Amino acid sequence: MATLFKDVLILDGSREKAERVHMLVSKGRIAEIIDASQNPPSADKIISGHGKLAVIPGFVNAHTHAAMVLLRGLGEEAPLMEWLQNKIWPVEDKLTPEHIYWGTLSAMLEMLSTGTTCFADMYFEMERVAEAVLGAGMRAALCRGITAGEPGKIERSLQNNLDLAEKYHGREGLITVQLGPHAPYTVPFESMKNIASAAKSHGLGIHFHFLETEGELQNLPMPPKEYLQSSGLLNAPYLTLAHAVWLDPNIELPDNVTLIHNPCSNLKLGSGVMPLVSWLDNSVPVALGTDGASSNNRLDMWEEMRTTALLHKGVNKDPVCVSALDVLRMATYEGARAYGFSQKGMLQEGWFADLVLVNLDKPHYIGVNEENLAAYLVYAGSSADVEGTMINGRWLYKNGEYPTLDCEEIMQKSREAREAITK
Amino acid sequence: MATLFKDVLILDGSREKAERVHMLVSKGRIAEIIDASQNPPSADKIISGHGKLAVIPGFVNAHTHAAMVLLRGLGEEAPLMEWLQNKIWPVEDKLTPEHIYWGTLSAMLEMLSTGTTCFADMYFEMERVAEAVLGAGMRAALCRGITAGEPGKIERSLQNNLDLAEKYHGREGLITVQLGPHAPYTVPFESMKNIASAAKSHGLGIHFHFLETEGELQNLPMPPKEYLQSSGLLNAPYLTLAHAVWLDPNIELPDNVTLIHNPCSNLKLGSGVMPLVSWLDNSVPVALGTDGASSNNRLDMWEEMRTTALLHKGVNKDPVCVSALDVLRMATYEGARAYGFSQKGMLQEGWFADLVLVNLDKPHYIGVNEENLAAYLVYAGSSADVEGTMINGRWLYKNGEYPTLDCEEIMQKSREAREAITK
Repeated sequence: MATLFKDVLILDGSREKAERVHMLVSKGRIAEIIDASQNPPSADKIISGHGKLAVIPGFVNAHTHAAMVLLRGLGEEAPLMEWLQNKIWPVEDKLTPEHIYWGTLSAMLEMLSTGTTCFADMYFEMERVAEAVLGAGMRAALCRGITAGEPGKIERSLQNNLDLAEKYHGREGLITVQLGPHAPYTVPFESMKNIASAAKSHGLGIHFHFLETEGELQNLPMPPKEYLQSSGLLNAPYLTLAHAVWLDPNIELPDNVTLIHNPCSNLKLGSGVMPLVSWLDNSVPVALGTDGASSNNRLDMWEEMRTTALLHKGVNKDPVCVSALDVLRMATYEGARAYGFSQKGMLQEGWFADLVLVNLDKPHYIGVNEENLAAYLVYAGSSADVEGTMINGRWLYKNGEYPTLDCEEIMQKSREAREAITK
Repeated sequence: MATLFKDVLILDGSREKAERVHMLVSKGRIAEIIDASQNPPSADKIISGHGKLAVIPGFVNAHTHAAMVLLRGLGEEAPLMEWLQNKIWPVEDKLTPEHIYWGTLSAMLEMLSTGTTCFADMYFEMERVAEAVLGAGMRAALCRGITAGEPGKIERSLQNNLDLAEKYHGREGLITVQLGPHAPYTVPFESMKNIASAAKSHGLGIHFHFLETEGELQNLPMPPKEYLQSSGLLNAPYLTLAHAVWLDPNIELPDNVTLIHNPCSNLKLGSGVMPLVSWLDNSVPVALGTDGASSNNRLDMWEEMRTTALLHKGVNKDPVCVSALDVLRMATYEGARAYGFSQKGMLQEGWFADLVLVNLDKPHYIGVNEENLAAYLVYAGSSADVEGTMINGRWLYKNGEYPTLDCEEIMQKSREAREAITK
């Protein structure tokens, strides 16, 4: 089935400004983009924009722990270690595979309704996460969070992560799998070397928390660059460093590294503000993520875009830095590329039709045009403007409905899971 | 007509946690609040919450320039003075009274749909603003922005502001009027003295921009406390200081002063971050505002609440500071009190029924309860959760409709105004 987006504004991270076009989606891909002044191609289904609908690439939430929606609001406004040790970890211990399945689906409802088409998830019971993702038809980059614990735990987790890759990497074009060593403070250095070596030999990327807090930097056994190098992490096909709040932007990083900026979570936990402007000046790729819902507490990439664009202007006292177009690219293409998804995250002929339909016919869009669309979306827009979210040419969210998911059941099962783990 | 909110969670800035109650609204006021376990009172209209609806006080946007929605998106990402001098001021010169009328109405659509019941507006052609406000049945604190210009301009503006007060102050209980000297850098000190003196003799409060930027502090002709004192500004019945980003929190301020924090605007314009934590520690009252839509670019108090709660944790590296309850109080009661509105901004028997109805039956509210409602609203909630906005017991926004406003006409007239001023 072909869908025509007739007379819409399109914008992505590769464009300087929006274009008013007809865009045809067919067989899961963007088949044709032509100027709106031309005759539109025919299609089974026509969405008429009259210049009051915009289409942008689907957001890629480049770092989250989806099922942590079940832990949202636990231990609010507590110091980080107290929060983790007393509120989060004891409750996480009670999570069953079923809980994680339903929690992930609940997170997916939230992400789809706010325009996210792909998310990078680090958690456990990841086979259940993969089944949730495939069942819905969403895209995800999955890794098993590997942490030390009882003897043999790391080895078992690594094997579990490798099994996940064997079974799901590349499945239906929807999933990529990474190895997920949790962080320098939860994985001993020798184990990190083994994981990095396994990543290289299996051709898998690595998704890793790095230098979220100042304390973590102080406790690192060696300088950050040396840590990344001598552990072998930099030898993986690609490496995503979540947070990197305390990584010195003067460090030179190879091309296979992407930083994942999680501004809301970093603020909420009091971790600090990443030196984003310097990284962008050094042309280091940065993508955006929400982190888990228990430290944000939303899974809404519009919030990350807006916070990124505002925060760095404020702390740098520079209204010109970090443009709306920068953050749009960071919220879409950079995340897709970072996790090995090709031809996704931009609106180009032949690329996959992962996109968000945005309603511009609202008071806060009065004055919007091709030149200023990015600024309107990032500074004035919000997820309330999302009309639909399409993945592979299929609507997964449209006008408040989820064609591939049973919203009521997911919410009920998630409520039961929440009750079970907090009683 | 009486409206019963049956079995809802209520929360305001005076409560430690939410309560599950029946709340009766009658004759524009909150007539009765009883525990949800009791038999509900009878009413003409019943809204059944089943514990899945929350009611909070309407937001008070304590500093804005409403009609600047017409200038939204002009000169994005430019240095402040370039933005003002080349993009904002030349366009503002073209604004007619009609433009300001429709622009204000457009801003009201935006504010009502996001839960704001009252806004403090500093602009010009304020009689037209007052008519827009009264026509809709919204609440507002209005002042004429007084700036220097051609000879006699300040005196005429002051007289215009006093006329506004004479005609509209207290009208229908919906409007209070303040005097609005714009800022130290736009009003000569001798004129400031005259305005302050007029405020005192007429019993009017003052709404004033103070120390938004570091440059403003450097150019102030005397220390800030001395400026406020010797100008006579502190002698007004009450004084609201918008921004105050660069005001030293060690300064002692009298009880009649409220600071208005505009975190998003301050970030976007690169002005910096107000030392909010110190002000709160010193028990100085602080309210929240959006500033104008051309420097935010939203008129959405949920964004100000969330940004306030996150930002200060991040820059202070303290996840415990600035609680969700703090910001809820700042976004509601503190603004109402600051502008002379009594019995507004809290949900108390006998107080005015200015409130927001919030839908908690969504995935991101799973786990919400009486204890954590504030945190859910501030960190996970958004204006997309607003079901209705009531002022004086009357719905001004309900389920996407505006019973007292013609949304289509307002948007059309606003589009025409935008075109007229930008061509």
